[in-house]
Amino acid sequence: MHCKLICLGKTKNAHLSSLIQEYIEKLNYYTTFELVVIPDAKTSIKQSLAHRKKQDTSLLLKHIKATDNVILLDERGKEMTSVDFAHFIEGKQSISIKNIVFVIGGAYGVSESFLLKTQQCISFSKMTFSHQMIRLFFLEQLYRAFTIINGHPYHH
Amino acid sequence: MHCKLICLGKTKNAHLSSLIQEYIEKLNYYTTFELVVIPDAKTSIKQSLAHRKKQDTSLLLKHIKATDNVILLDERGKEMTSVDFAHFIEGKQSISIKNIVFVIGGAYGVSESFLLKTQQCISFSKMTFSHQMIRLFFLEQLYRAFTIINGHPYHH
Repeated sequence: MHCKLICLGKTKNAHLSSLIQEYIEKLNYYTTFELVVIPDAKTSIKQSLAHRKKQDTSLLLKHIKATDNVILLDERGKEMTSVDFAHFIEGKQSISIKNIVFVIGGAYGVSESFLLKTQQCISFSKMTFSHQMIRLFFLEQLYRAFTIINGHPYHH
Repeated sequence: MHCKLICLGKTKNAHLSSLIQEYIEKLNYYTTFELVVIPDAKTSIKQSLAHRKKQDTSLLLKHIKATDNVILLDERGKEMTSVDFAHFIEGKQSISIKNIVFVIGGAYGVSESFLLKTQQCISFSKMTFSHQMIRLFFLEQLYRAFTIINGHPYHH
């Protein structure tokens, strides 16, 4: 199973960027993982939030293939424990999903047209985290999920 | 109001350590914030989990004063949105709490003797994060809370 994370906006903080890279390397022990960072769209303050949301959605949709199994990370989604999330990933493996694509929307969310392409929507917390930092949280949880699936000592 | 975070075990990852430091600097714009890192107790594999939990609890208790308002961060605690958390902090300010002390327990949790000293127990996620990384999540949320309280543009 190939895992991908698609998100919007380059990580400007060098330390965060390095931490993200460290988790990608760890993940590649268990799966082929790819991080796709779509550069932020040029926006002006005058643009409405609805317009920015539409713009972000259209950028994201360009990276989704018809055969992708798309999981949106959104605070309104279903919350899971780390063990539930590991079972969720294992479930995808067991039904021979080839490409699992996780998506972190922009700061203004995604439009309905994106939700129609989405298989599941998962929330990592009721809290709002910066959409930069949520990448790191996601990578730690995906790594943790693979250690749980493989019975490796990382998760207590 | 003086804010403190007490946690166990030095952050070994230099990038994570730098990110934590960046948030502490940002936080000091809004409040006096102090991070207390208690060195890990020397443990052997032979020791039971109950023993390690007791050992961690005793280390943490040494840093708690009778006048501290203690908030334990634990995945079994109450979940909040970022706005709820901001109101929670604002509530503490409004009743003139002088020292608010957040505590992240060790990997084996804390004993009942610690819970007796705890005013509230908050969960940041149903998921389990490394007790190193949860420090960063906490600092981002505490910073976010102060921006919400002060009406500053950070939280959407």
